[in-house]
Parts: sequence; structure tokens; C-alpha cells
Amino acid sequence: MARSDTAFLFDLDGTLVDSVYQHVLAWKEALEREGVELSVWRIHRKIGMSGGLFANILLRETGLEITDDRLARLRQWHAEAYNRQHAASAIRPLPGARELLDQLTAQDIPWAIATSGRMATAAANLQALGVDPAKVTVVTRDQVRHAKPDPDLFLTAARRLGVDIHKALVIGDSVWDMLAAQRARSLGVGLLSGGYGRAELQESGAFRVYDDPADMLRHLDEVAARE
Amino acid sequence: MARSDTAFLFDLDGTLVDSVYQHVLAWKEALEREGVELSVWRIHRKIGMSGGLFANILLRETGLEITDDRLARLRQWHAEAYNRQHAASAIRPLPGARELLDQLTAQDIPWAIATSGRMATAAANLQALGVDPAKVTVVTRDQVRHAKPDPDLFLTAARRLGVDIHKALVIGDSVWDMLAAQRARSLGVGLLSGGYGRAELQESGAFRVYDDPADMLRHLDEVAARE
Repeated sequence: MARSDTAFLFDLDGTLVDSVYQHVLAWKEALEREGVELSVWRIHRKIGMSGGLFANILLRETGLEITDDRLARLRQWHAEAYNRQHAASAIRPLPGARELLDQLTAQDIPWAIATSGRMATAAANLQALGVDPAKVTVVTRDQVRHAKPDPDLFLTAARRLGVDIHKALVIGDSVWDMLAAQRARSLGVGLLSGGYGRAELQESGAFRVYDDPADMLRHLDEVAARE
Repeated sequence: MARSDTAFLFDLDGTLVDSVYQHVLAWKEALEREGVELSVWRIHRKIGMSGGLFANILLRETGLEITDDRLARLRQWHAEAYNRQHAASAIRPLPGARELLDQLTAQDIPWAIATSGRMATAAANLQALGVDPAKVTVVTRDQVRHAKPDPDLFLTAARRLGVDIHKALVIGDSVWDMLAAQRARSLGVGLLSGGYGRAELQESGAFRVYDDPADMLRHLDEVAARE
């Protein structure tokens, strides 16, 4: 029987898989093709929302009209550029990611993955991570109405696991994960592996911050009682 | 006659030119070719040192032996990968960079560029920025013994301008710039445009932090008296 005193709800990109910077430059390329000039660090700071919401915000901030055509083109160009980045240098699990998930499984602690990405993009990352979405609870953008920073992805993940969101931890690398965690009244754990600063995560509500999954695994008893 | 009460010493990548993320992924690719697996965010946090020092530290942290051959290969592979990133999506000046430099020139405030990069890599960035190293004081890695976080680059830039480093401002995007500024006993101004967090820059000594050159230009009278 699963221990019901806690559950771990993980973001994917930048949290379990080392893919944030590739996504950032892929969005940069897509936006340039659409004639939108935006500094790379500003794209980095918006990443982790859903692709659609993210593109909406970027277009709004740059004053361009938001049309369905434009959003579809951006999404398509981002996917093309991301696959090229992916081909130049393979996307890998972050250090300790696989071991952390295995440790939770071994301790009967329920866990799930909730990502703002669509299954089309997430599938390759899940495979690199050795996670079979037929066996593990994986919630993607396709399956909820609102993506992060709305809490729907994490709420849905908790519901599917049959756990109480108020006893769950949300583990993510971006401020959007931490804000969604607060809105869901769960606890956010921040990881630095997406390239945001420690203070940015703390200011958006992280109750604890680790370097990456390996660092979190070493300090697991700080956030969940070990067997 | 130049106003002698202050001088601006600028870092280049991430401070005047939007090139940090491209450098980060180029290093990632170079390290992978050498068999070194390192998370992208950790590379990002070391960038801004000289290429050689940077590679030394990465190899030391990953336990690989540091040989001249290996360093030469890494530098070569980084340059190749960077040029490919550059081709996929042009490196551009950061918003306000050109205007900020023009404003300083108009106000007779001396300014210079001091970069940890070598002239071979910096030349294209300077060109994108519209800076002619024959007319402007530009100090590159090739011209000093120690790169950042040693203060040599900024000390040399101040000497060439004929200004007192104790009256100069060092403007940079990385903690290495801020540390070098402190070691030179100048004042560091941090810009977020290299993708580091505000607190990271403040904790390494920035006495003021702006978003990017455009934001700094709007608030120029906070750090130097306007005409």
C-alpha cells in the first residue's frame, strides 16, 4: 500500500530533464522568424508556462497582434528549432533524476509528472528519462484547460494519484511551478537546474531549494520522512 | 575634454550583446564531444570567465585531467558550435546598448569594453554592436595575463582610458564581473540580460542592478551625473 502522507508532483523540463536552454534558443529562433526581437534572458524568464500562454504573453509584451495563425506558426517553428538543438546535442536526464524517482518508488511514495509541454514534445524527454507514460501518471498540457502558473496540472496529477494536494510537494525549476504550487496550496520545492536564481524561486514561494534532483535525493529526509 | 569624474568599463557578452545562451550551449556541445557530461545551468554559472579558466574549472569539477591538447580541442569545438548557433539565429546588440554608448560619448564620459573573450570571437560581436576596436578602447583576453574574476581586464581598460579605476563603474551581467569590480575597488553595476538572478549579482557586490542597457540608460542619473 502506498504511503499516503505525501506525494511528489514533478515538473519535467529543467526539473528532471536538462532541456530548458534548448527550449529557450528554439523559442528565440521561432520568434525571430516571426519578426519578433526579444532578448534571450526574457524568453528564459517566461519559459515553463504552456507554449500557448507563453507565446501570448511574449506577443502581448512586444505589442504584436495575437492571431491563431501566428501562434500556430510559432509553435511549429519552435518544434523545428528544438529538434535541431536536440540533434546537435542530446537532451539528457538531469543528474540523479532517475535515481530520485526509483527511490520514491522503492519507498512507496506516490509520484507523478505534470508538464506544461504537450505530449508531442514531452514524449522524447520521458523516453530519455526512462518513464513509460502507460505505467506512470503523466499529465501534459493537452489534458488540462489551463497550464502553469494555473494549478490545474498539479491538481490533476494529485487527483489521478488519489492523493490530497494539501499533502503533496510540487518540485519544479521555474517561478511558474512555485506560483502554481502556492495556488494549489501544496508546497513548492525549487531546483536550480533550470537556470533560475535561488532567490527567484524563494521569492515565488519555494519552501526549500536544491541544486538538482541528485542534491534533492541526498537531502530527501528534509522534505519527506525516509522509511 | 573628457569629464574625469567617472568612466564606464563594460563587459561584452550578456552586457552589450545578446550572446550568453548561445555560448552556453556551444560549451555544452564542446564538452560532450570531449566526453564530459555537465548540466547546462552549471555551464551558464561559470560563463564570463576566460574560456581557458572556465574550461579548467569545468574539467577540475568533473575530475578529468587537464591537458593542453584537451583545452585546445574544447576551445576549437566551442568556436565551431558557437558559429553554428550564430548562423541559426544572429547575435544582436542588447536593447539600448548602442544608445547607451552613444549617450556616454555625447556626454564626454569615457568608456571602454573589457571582455574575457578573445578578439577572434569578440570581433563579430563588436561589429554587430557597431564598435570599431581601432577607435574605441577594447581590452580582450589576449591582452592581459589573467581574465575575470581577476581584475586585470578592467584595470587595463581604465589605464588605457587614462582614468582612475576608483572612480570607474564596471558594468557586467555575471558574478565574475562583479567580483572583478570589487577586487579592482571600482563599483559594479549588474545587468540581468545575461540570465543571472538579481540576488546573485547583488550578493557578488553589484551596487545597482538594471534589466539591460536600455533600462540602465533610462536611469543613468542614478549612477552618473547627467550633463
